[in-house]
Amino acid sequence: MKNYRIGVIPGDGTGPEVVREGLKILEAAARKYGFKYETIVYPFGGEHYKKTGETLPDSAIEEFKKLDALYLGAIGHPDVKPGILEQGILLKIRFSLDQYINLRPVKLYPNVWTPIKDKGPEDIDFVVVRENTEGLYVGAGGFLRKGTPFEVAIQESINTRKGVERCIRFAFEYTIKRNKKKKLTLCGKTNVLTYAFDLWERTFYEVAREYPEVQTDYAHVDATTMWMVKNPEWFDVIVTDNMFGDIITDLGAMIQGGMGVAAGGNINPEGVSMFEPIGGSAPKYTGQNVINPIAAICALGMLLDNIGESEASQAVENAVIKALETGKIKSMSAGKMGLTTQEVGDLIASFI
Amino acid sequence: MKNYRIGVIPGDGTGPEVVREGLKILEAAARKYGFKYETIVYPFGGEHYKKTGETLPDSAIEEFKKLDALYLGAIGHPDVKPGILEQGILLKIRFSLDQYINLRPVKLYPNVWTPIKDKGPEDIDFVVVRENTEGLYVGAGGFLRKGTPFEVAIQESINTRKGVERCIRFAFEYTIKRNKKKKLTLCGKTNVLTYAFDLWERTFYEVAREYPEVQTDYAHVDATTMWMVKNPEWFDVIVTDNMFGDIITDLGAMIQGGMGVAAGGNINPEGVSMFEPIGGSAPKYTGQNVINPIAAICALGMLLDNIGESEASQAVENAVIKALETGKIKSMSAGKMGLTTQEVGDLIASFI
Ligand SMILES: CC(C)[C@H](C(=O)O)[C@@H](O)C(=O)O
Ligand SMILES: CC(C)[C@H](C(=O)O)[C@@H](O)C(=O)O
Repeated sequence: MKNYRIGVIPGDGTGPEVVREGLKILEAAARKYGFKYETIVYPFGGEHYKKTGETLPDSAIEEFKKLDALYLGAIGHPDVKPGILEQGILLKIRFSLDQYINLRPVKLYPNVWTPIKDKGPEDIDFVVVRENTEGLYVGAGGFLRKGTPFEVAIQESINTRKGVERCIRFAFEYTIKRNKKKKLTLCGKTNVLTYAFDLWERTFYEVAREYPEVQTDYAHVDATTMWMVKNPEWFDVIVTDNMFGDIITDLGAMIQGGMGVAAGGNINPEGVSMFEPIGGSAPKYTGQNVINPIAAICALGMLLDNIGESEASQAVENAVIKALETGKIKSMSAGKMGLTTQEVGDLIASFI
Repeated sequence: MKNYRIGVIPGDGTGPEVVREGLKILEAAARKYGFKYETIVYPFGGEHYKKTGETLPDSAIEEFKKLDALYLGAIGHPDVKPGILEQGILLKIRFSLDQYINLRPVKLYPNVWTPIKDKGPEDIDFVVVRENTEGLYVGAGGFLRKGTPFEVAIQESINTRKGVERCIRFAFEYTIKRNKKKKLTLCGKTNVLTYAFDLWERTFYEVAREYPEVQTDYAHVDATTMWMVKNPEWFDVIVTDNMFGDIITDLGAMIQGGMGVAAGGNINPEGVSMFEPIGGSAPKYTGQNVINPIAAICALGMLLDNIGESEASQAVENAVIKALETGKIKSMSAGKMGLTTQEVGDLIASFI
């Protein structure tokens, strides 16, 4: 019997509450699908930082490398200056573990409210493959004459053939594995970012030659946001850089029903990956048992697929859909579900 | 009597058709509000480039500097490699004339279909002030080991205190002049773009001290796209950098009804500004008399305000609203209006 070692970072605010429900589902899935696991819980987050001044030590990264996967709740604290925890924990994990893919399914489940008109689950079902270790996220840049009227601030997007190619290759493979429309759209800005997206575009069409069964398409990032809202059914898989991916996946989260349901994976296909609900720590709802755990549960489902338990992973998604189909969960928004966080978790667990 | 010199670049595709309607409105407004104008028509665009190899000569820029304003139809040609015309004409004008503001009202007019649910004209009414001469648009960057497996492509966002400050200052002044919610939101990514948006954020809060009557707010760009779709009524004026502005204004165009109605201005408050419908050249609809001229007419309205004819400008907007209120224009989409391009122009002109 397989025994998985899962690192768990419950994190801040409502993170621990949603992680608890995710682990409930993990337990149910393990029993049903016959695998063992142990969880190693890490204290990192805003509270820990406030107490100790530590964000994430290098020693933790070394430990993470021995895990099968990481499961993250939420990182973010109202008293900590924006940037410190994001850079010190979230981005540090992505970069140190070389999680070069950010995978974000944008799928509207039944009975989930979307802010866009005339679109249902059959229309909103695509996946964004976001490059997760390069571009504007590398932190390169600097100031000249800082604080003077002559200040210059430079931020650099650094893109490598290696980084771009492995991401694009993953996207093609994923499009085939997904086996739906078999269409991959490169989202970029070739007409303005003539260095970065020249590399992206060249690499995209070169790699495309190896995947003749995949239909390729290109859309500027500005147009992409328009079509996501107007014609989401046009998309199957979208591949894009780190910054554009950040933007369009949040827009995607909104059209699939919001932070209550949106999950993502930070994936190193050859290493250790991390899965998370993409919402924040929601300080306002902390400890009230009203936060929606579905995103965290879907993240757990993605984690299961990643460690090789694809049947269990599918079962988690099916359980989420069945729970939604009961109509018992009135809204995807925190405080409006009509059920507590735990009741939603229990309902989903009952369908595993 | 004032006599304005307006440079007109009808451009490609449907550009000439929509510009013709805009000029019809200009004529009506001039008669009604008692000003004179002359138009100087320029041939630049994809067709001209294909014939002559010329995008936009420096001599034209020198001529433009003597105009009161520029009016642009659309630039873009299916046979010309993307980037050439955008860089060679549109961006060249923006940069050479130092049009450092891109002003984009996002306003849902009556009887206009928006793809988002439960929102009406009272909810969708905000303005994006986009920096228009810096950031990732400066074209800085380069390749290392191009074409090899070790290629590096760098794209730089260059931001200056001068450039950021004048844009932010314009946004504060505009928020006051607009006189609605008196709220200005900085849209950025301070937690990741720690150089570029550090400058933006510092400048924003420094300048804010001079405008205590304006309520300030901050939103990450990814979150901004979410709220634009879910709670557009939260916004009054948004100020942001060139790249983020490009993205959120296209999303804004979609929620205000699409390319048929979205207009923008490239503004140099101390110099010559250019106004344009933000849609493309729409080759598919060219010459069919089915393209929506409303965006071009609204751009003309913005132009009138810019040259100092604010009463006439208001009259153009009112005429657009009255025309829409008749219910005679069935859709904002090309080919579905139920009226021809010229009929829509005539209808609006009849309300001037
Ligand atoms: C928290 C932040 C640094 C992060 C990002 O920008 O990548 C988040 O928005 C995300 O998309 O995971
Ligand atoms: C055509 C293109 C270069 C331009 C831009 O990116 O600025 C357009 O998208 C716009 O928003 O005016």
